[in-house]
Formats: sequence, C-alpha cells, structure tokens
Amino acid sequence: MKKINFKEKMSKFSDHWSPKVIAELNDYQFKLVKIEGDFVWHRHEDTDEAFIVIEGDMWIDFENDAVHLAEGEMCIVPKGVQHRPRSSNECKIMLVEPRGVINTGESAGELTASNDVWI
Amino acid sequence: MKKINFKEKMSKFSDHWSPKVIAELNDYQFKLVKIEGDFVWHRHEDTDEAFIVIEGDMWIDFENDAVHLAEGEMCIVPKGVQHRPRSSNECKIMLVEPRGVINTGESAGELTASNDVWI
Repeated sequence: MKKINFKEKMSKFSDHWSPKVIAELNDYQFKLVKIEGDFVWHRHEDTDEAFIVIEGDMWIDFENDAVHLAEGEMCIVPKGVQHRPRSSNECKIMLVEPRGVINTGESAGELTASNDVWI
Repeated sequence: MKKINFKEKMSKFSDHWSPKVIAELNDYQFKLVKIEGDFVWHRHEDTDEAFIVIEGDMWIDFENDAVHLAEGEMCIVPKGVQHRPRSSNECKIMLVEPRGVINTGESAGELTASNDVWI
C-alpha cells in the first residue's frame, strides 16, 4: 500500500493540458493536469468528468454559463455537455474519469494528449 | 452547472463515520466524511475505494502495513483488502467509490451508515 502526495506528483511534470495518471480505482483514473490559457471546446459523449482544483483557479465555460473553481472546489461536467476549461494563470487540477477518455473528446487536434501516462 | 466547495460542504455536518454525498460521476459518488477514533476492520469485496485527505491526518491500517495520510494525500484501498481507517484527532476526508458501497463492508454493525445522504 502506498500513499500518493499531490504536491510531490505535481513536481514531476511541467507541460500543460497533458494529464498524468496517479491512481486507478476499478476502471477509473485519477489524473493530474497543469493548465494555462484556453483549452478547446469539446464534449465527452459517454461519460461525466470530475474537475477538482488542487492549486490556483480556473474557469469552465459552458454554452450558456461559466463556473469559476478555486482551490478546494470541484465540478462535475455531465456527459455530452460542451465545455471549455481555461485559466489565465497556471492552475493545477485533478480529473477523475473512466480509463480511456480522450482529453479533447470529439475535438481531436494538437491539444489531444496521450492516455495512460503514469507519473 | 454548479461548483462544490469542500469547506462549505464540511460545515453542514458534524457526525463522525457517516459519509455524505456531494457529487455523482456516472455511477460513482464523491462523499465527505469526518472521522475520529478507530473504525472497524472491514473490506469491500467488489470495489476499490479512494481516500483523499481534505484536512487533518489519518492512518489506514492493513494486515501487515499502515499508511499515514495528511492533507493533500490519497490512497487507493484495493477491493477485498482488509483495512481499518483511524485518526486520533478529527480528520476530514473525501471518499470516491461506486454508488451503493456500504461503509463497513462485510462488517455490519453500529458504525454502518445510511447511504445516499446528500448535503
């Protein structure tokens, strides 16, 4: 049995928009991501997605709404819902979602990251 | 869309060992719990369980091991593995696990809590 320390894991990478897996729970993964700037609008047709802010603050834009998240706050993006994460300064977050989810959903492009990159 | 603030949710209850649901992700739940003292030894035959410390520190005892978790740390307890959470002082944690998991696993007793209590 081993514990996972968010700060220690965050120190292991510096790239943005590229989720790193830190734990698996059944067929779900916990992933750390550093974000800065605007991501692409996208949706995940088959799954909800959890955003948890570890450090900093961010916005998630929705078609008719926007949610601001600071440290110690989380939001569930329901499946099929268009959203755009963004942050003017670097923000460190944790995602929880099923194994195999593509970060850009149906909007594949240069921000599409590799899956199953463990740190 | 709404955000969930851990501190605000933690202020809504004071009992120990009684998980409160704050969010659902597909068929998984995020639950806040305040713990103090020793829980019962138990296991969950059908699922892994994630412990994330929000405030304070705690131990999870295993049959031949023990893991200490402080704020900003997490641990996955694999399915079928006997464990006993404990904390000498109050500790505030978040659990992530499938909907319907009984907090005491196969060790039903006075610490068995109701499920699906939302705050």
